[in-house]
Amino acid sequence: MSEVIAKTKAAKATTVILGKLTTAQKNEALMIMADALMADHDGIIAANAEDLARGRDNGTSPALLDRIKLTPDRIAGIAEGIRQIVALPDPVGEVLESGHRPNGLFIEKRRVPIGVVGIIYEARPNVTVDAAALCLKTGNAVVLRGGSAALSSNRYIVNVLRQALTHSAMPADALQLIEDASRSSVDEMLKLNGLLDVIIPRGGASLIQNVVQNATVPVIETGAGICHTFVDETADAGMATAIAVNAKAQRPSVCNSMETLLVHRAFAVRHLASLADAMRAASVELRGCGTTLELIGEAKVATDEDFATEYNDYILNVRVVDSLDEAIDHIRRFGTMHSECIVTENADHAERFMQDVDAAAVYHNASTRFTDGFEFGYGAEIGISTQKLHVRGPMGLPALTSTKYRVLGNGQIRT
Amino acid sequence: MSEVIAKTKAAKATTVILGKLTTAQKNEALMIMADALMADHDGIIAANAEDLARGRDNGTSPALLDRIKLTPDRIAGIAEGIRQIVALPDPVGEVLESGHRPNGLFIEKRRVPIGVVGIIYEARPNVTVDAAALCLKTGNAVVLRGGSAALSSNRYIVNVLRQALTHSAMPADALQLIEDASRSSVDEMLKLNGLLDVIIPRGGASLIQNVVQNATVPVIETGAGICHTFVDETADAGMATAIAVNAKAQRPSVCNSMETLLVHRAFAVRHLASLADAMRAASVELRGCGTTLELIGEAKVATDEDFATEYNDYILNVRVVDSLDEAIDHIRRFGTMHSECIVTENADHAERFMQDVDAAAVYHNASTRFTDGFEFGYGAEIGISTQKLHVRGPMGLPALTSTKYRVLGNGQIRT
Repeated sequence: MSEVIAKTKAAKATTVILGKLTTAQKNEALMIMADALMADHDGIIAANAEDLARGRDNGTSPALLDRIKLTPDRIAGIAEGIRQIVALPDPVGEVLESGHRPNGLFIEKRRVPIGVVGIIYEARPNVTVDAAALCLKTGNAVVLRGGSAALSSNRYIVNVLRQALTHSAMPADALQLIEDASRSSVDEMLKLNGLLDVIIPRGGASLIQNVVQNATVPVIETGAGICHTFVDETADAGMATAIAVNAKAQRPSVCNSMETLLVHRAFAVRHLASLADAMRAASVELRGCGTTLELIGEAKVATDEDFATEYNDYILNVRVVDSLDEAIDHIRRFGTMHSECIVTENADHAERFMQDVDAAAVYHNASTRFTDGFEFGYGAEIGISTQKLHVRGPMGLPALTSTKYRVLGNGQIRT
Repeated sequence: MSEVIAKTKAAKATTVILGKLTTAQKNEALMIMADALMADHDGIIAANAEDLARGRDNGTSPALLDRIKLTPDRIAGIAEGIRQIVALPDPVGEVLESGHRPNGLFIEKRRVPIGVVGIIYEARPNVTVDAAALCLKTGNAVVLRGGSAALSSNRYIVNVLRQALTHSAMPADALQLIEDASRSSVDEMLKLNGLLDVIIPRGGASLIQNVVQNATVPVIETGAGICHTFVDETADAGMATAIAVNAKAQRPSVCNSMETLLVHRAFAVRHLASLADAMRAASVELRGCGTTLELIGEAKVATDEDFATEYNDYILNVRVVDSLDEAIDHIRRFGTMHSECIVTENADHAERFMQDVDAAAVYHNASTRFTDGFEFGYGAEIGISTQKLHVRGPMGLPALTSTKYRVLGNGQIRT
């Protein structure tokens, strides 16, 4: 039996116990996990040093090395993240609907864990802990398959967490790490119907597309974000500039940052030059349509390929449009249905945009950077769904549950 | 451009209009559809006669021919089904969550249509109308791919419905029928990411498995039902017999009927013989474990293959077990997480069963035949989901919607 099948079966065997744990038992297990991470931070940092040394030898980029790197502060932050999940309400057991039918049946729809959740991700060891804590809090078993660049860290951390669970009511086998770093372990997970209930990919576009295109297990697609901000004719110039610079440059590497700014021609002729200056002051490289280049001077031409690219970087496409409809058409063509914003003082235009643009989150006069479980008030986030089934947008704890109908009768038969 | 791509693109182009239709506009369109079916029932019956003649020439079974057959009464029933959908509340636009964040953002989560729904089904022309009406009521465009055995009927009916829509606010292109009856049209639909938002397969196990195994478009899996009834030691003999016979024989061809009866040994020695007689009186062929055969006499041996088979027929496996745990283990091994029942007077056993069995619907002292959108009070049903994401169990109108977050600000940027 392969590692993937053996560990997923072991995880699945714990689901009956997990589904019955009380909130107090789950929270106690999570607190023990957090304490164990803090207690063993020297060991974690030593394991992490192996990943960093191997990365340097392999020529890994400094940016990626920084994402892999763990420090005492970062470990404390990760442990604190677990404690924040402890403080959140437990959705499992919640009664979503209930009532008597005319024939006397009592039907109740209750939240239950999904079962076994597979997480396929890249090189951030914090995802290992974060995903584990979110899944376990919701009574799910979890099978983690992280990137090879953080394997030593992940292996050490998961050993610490599993050891911690032996001091709790939660079975240690509910938490599994796939150590086979070859592509075949991912391929195997994608086809494990009947053992894995869902796979959530977290990472770059190619990782996510590989999962979506090849999985037969149900997938929750996350993260692809080609987000737009449309600055309408009547937009307040100061607000538009602040929102646009924030959406692009406050943290360009994340999925809710803006990739393309659409500007109404009437606004552009008056204010685009100063908006471009503000972008340049924030280190943003600009690419523009013909009109944009006339108005702002020095910049590269934005091609259709650029409009279809999620830069995740200090690069911005700018396109001048003649109308709200042209802006909506552009978004329909190039958007990934993640987060889209209109800046306008025209209430009718705002409503048209909010209604007609098909995206997980549509904004009027605020930065797309707010699409986030914490900012939406969910207290935690396992990802941002860009699909329309099961869950759309920021995914808090309820997104990690399914439902079960409980039907109580006294002998009812169907006629 | 293939028929599938051309028609799906035409459907997708209507989604912006569909999403903005009022409930009154959608209901008016549905009423016009119902009236048009009634007005043209001679034409429908003539088209249906072509399918029936072709079927008889091809040696189609009488049972299948009966499913394909349309009569004035059946057409009236189909039209009445549309009117019942008109009477149901429209879930689109419902506000599921809303509130202000500390930074002043107002965030609202509203139900919206899913977009373009693909339905892949077999030979019942009533599904054509039913699926169309459910999808259009929820503001979705729909691409239907029915079985070739009912192609003449489906083509005629869809023409009638599309013609009817030209007299309404709903664009006729929202309703599409794929007439290419080859397997390649199904294969093409399964990969139409970006054009189709979800595929719902309706039909037998092989149709559903083909969709699940090969689709890259998100799928809502429906229908596979190996359902069990466990008769516990303390069950009331009369109730247990009535529930078991109903679950098996009231309509064996559907997914919520029982395939295997599990009986506690203490109940079996006293009552299994008479329960078996009641089954035989209902024309049910019995297959049993060794103990069963000793207790009830004449019957075939039930193999593991039998326990893993959805008969959809007047055939029942019977297995005697020594405990509740053994019954739950059997269900875990052979069940399809559809509908599972315990008949018992022991409240602790009932609660254990309801908690530990992982299924869309778990029953205490009632027939599994109640797992159904109408019986659950949803007024309509597009299928019964046997998966755990998006929707589980009977799928009413809300199951055909997604959500959109609407965020209203006054210049908020993220810090």
